[in-house]
Amino acid sequence: MAERAYLDWNATAPLHEAARAAVLAALDAGNPSSVHAEGREARALVERARAEVAAAVGATPRQIVFTSGATEANALALTPAIETADDAAPRDGLVVSAIEHPSVLRGHRFGALPVETAAVDRAGVVEVAAVEGALARLAEKGCRRPLVSVMLANNETGVIQPVAGIAERVHAAGGLVHVDAVQALGRIPLDVRALDADLVTLSSHKAGGPKGAGALVLGPRISHLAAPLIAGGGQERGVRAGTEAVPAIAGFGAAAAAAVASLPAAAARMSGLRTRLAEGLHRIAPFAVELGAEAPRLPNTLAVALAGLAAETAVIAFDLNGVAISAGSACSSGKVAASPVVAAMGFPELAGSTLRFSVGPATTEAEIDRAIGVWQTVVGALANRQGKAA
Amino acid sequence: MAERAYLDWNATAPLHEAARAAVLAALDAGNPSSVHAEGREARALVERARAEVAAAVGATPRQIVFTSGATEANALALTPAIETADDAAPRDGLVVSAIEHPSVLRGHRFGALPVETAAVDRAGVVEVAAVEGALARLAEKGCRRPLVSVMLANNETGVIQPVAGIAERVHAAGGLVHVDAVQALGRIPLDVRALDADLVTLSSHKAGGPKGAGALVLGPRISHLAAPLIAGGGQERGVRAGTEAVPAIAGFGAAAAAAVASLPAAAARMSGLRTRLAEGLHRIAPFAVELGAEAPRLPNTLAVALAGLAAETAVIAFDLNGVAISAGSACSSGKVAASPVVAAMGFPELAGSTLRFSVGPATTEAEIDRAIGVWQTVVGALANRQGKAA
Repeated sequence: MAERAYLDWNATAPLHEAARAAVLAALDAGNPSSVHAEGREARALVERARAEVAAAVGATPRQIVFTSGATEANALALTPAIETADDAAPRDGLVVSAIEHPSVLRGHRFGALPVETAAVDRAGVVEVAAVEGALARLAEKGCRRPLVSVMLANNETGVIQPVAGIAERVHAAGGLVHVDAVQALGRIPLDVRALDADLVTLSSHKAGGPKGAGALVLGPRISHLAAPLIAGGGQERGVRAGTEAVPAIAGFGAAAAAAVASLPAAAARMSGLRTRLAEGLHRIAPFAVELGAEAPRLPNTLAVALAGLAAETAVIAFDLNGVAISAGSACSSGKVAASPVVAAMGFPELAGSTLRFSVGPATTEAEIDRAIGVWQTVVGALANRQGKAA
Repeated sequence: MAERAYLDWNATAPLHEAARAAVLAALDAGNPSSVHAEGREARALVERARAEVAAAVGATPRQIVFTSGATEANALALTPAIETADDAAPRDGLVVSAIEHPSVLRGHRFGALPVETAAVDRAGVVEVAAVEGALARLAEKGCRRPLVSVMLANNETGVIQPVAGIAERVHAAGGLVHVDAVQALGRIPLDVRALDADLVTLSSHKAGGPKGAGALVLGPRISHLAAPLIAGGGQERGVRAGTEAVPAIAGFGAAAAAAVASLPAAAARMSGLRTRLAEGLHRIAPFAVELGAEAPRLPNTLAVALAGLAAETAVIAFDLNGVAISAGSACSSGKVAASPVVAAMGFPELAGSTLRFSVGPATTEAEIDRAIGVWQTVVGALANRQGKAA
């Protein structure tokens, strides 16, 4: 297919050339647990990647636990069995925001323990007060050691959440904080110290690395994760068993380093492209709503809702015209469903009418303009149908 | 380092060229859950690999659940929440053999439910009677729906277990059978129908594929795995969430296809090399014990124990002389410990004195002869020390 425009970087980012080189250099590595030279060379690749990922997010290498991806990292993090230096008793309740990824909402391991949801406002922001409300409801149920999971930047709207402020309140209430930061790496500065989060999830393939690697960053309060998800060998300091995915991990490290190195310029470039796109879409459909525009957002994400638009059909029309976008999250199973994020923001009538455009550092103005051209066709067809129906 | 001899294929097999090509072709794939062309191309790569892995083991594609590796597949399999068409009640007890991998022994999810161990004999075989004994002990504790986990071929000795016979007995007793077959793929014919196993674990990197992929094969009795290890998105038919590791999975598929295609010739070649090695080692140290030699074995594995030998030191000596081998399993964390498998076979005094040599289709006679040469040095040094000590 000639000249496609790929505007779905939040689903998966194209592989960065530095990551490709690192993967290729790691394909013949031995087993990092082997004591011989081949094993030690593999170990060195994993530890180099660990240092790269740590440096990219303001952590130390010892804080990084490599996983198979962000979904696994979320499941690993969201367990009651989190011990701190002060408190080895298990967490007794969970707060999730209403706009978390399914791997948080359905992947957590709190079983029958109380789970409360912190609401999101119409701008797509989980306010500190909403988390305080959820904590109060947990406290009424007798929970004294909550875990709170709030993402750093939403995958559908790009809205950046007030995580540092939330962390301050949660810690004051005796809680711990998990932050799913997969969409932030390489798009905005990401420093786990500034966030003061206790558990931070990262993804390789959202940041220009290969699919098949992710990480959980353990903050300084965490002394032990007592319930590994995958147990057996002693890899990853006993927190994640299994032979390390050396090529994917090496690629992740290189991608993280590259993403951060290019960040200020890349963010400015992405922001400019996003503005060009938003303005182009708005010219054609003045009544379209740019979700989350009032809030601080990732520079690369644009969620546009248009009343009456069938997002599923529109995504297919864009695809047939050479533009890859998505309707909400791609993370389910090839299905385009109504967006629970848009519904949670208070726009249930737009949940099936929202398109997500997400760009990257390599996106071109020609790709943007191509998308605007397809939008013209899609909106024209919609107006035509609505005119006939009226 | 020039001219190394890599005789540690059971720790990780060098990447097969077909697998390398498949990985390279998949590095730029999209997200398989995306509905656009880039997503559908990625989906096609995953489904092609699924068909290849299925064909390699006599399964249908629908039976294959891709995971991040065998350790995760074992954890996914070893849960009480396994439903069959006849019986949706949870499994109420577990039998493991004494020589299972740590990912079985420590990775299962039976928690506080009864777990019994089936003993291994001095030949390294878990006899059907040993499993029957363990089942009887479970029955005494009131367990009526056991799960039994017995590996197909041991990673340290290569001994092939009578899995089909065990499965027959377990099924007659109302149980289900899990088989960790990671060391078998590409080394002996592997047909999940002939085994009649209910859950079969496979590994990519033990069979010439990249690290970072594995699979669980669900047998025809299994109707539902009700306790996914990693939940969230609907990938892998709801049994394993998370964006698929497309490059690793594609490489796994290609490796599985290549391994099976070359199998009869490769097995004969490996067996010849193993014989050459065993004879060479025996000439130098007639008192060395070839563990498991009385039992049917993988053609590629040789476990040799020599009283008084410090395996850890010997592995380092081999490494310094350009030969990569291991002492027991490599799967822990860079540590060479006494082999629990050798101890379980009734040779506790040899558990710290056993070396594992494992070859592959690409191993050369020169590599074998190099290992024999180093063995001469190692045994000479041991004899010298023992002479001085005497």
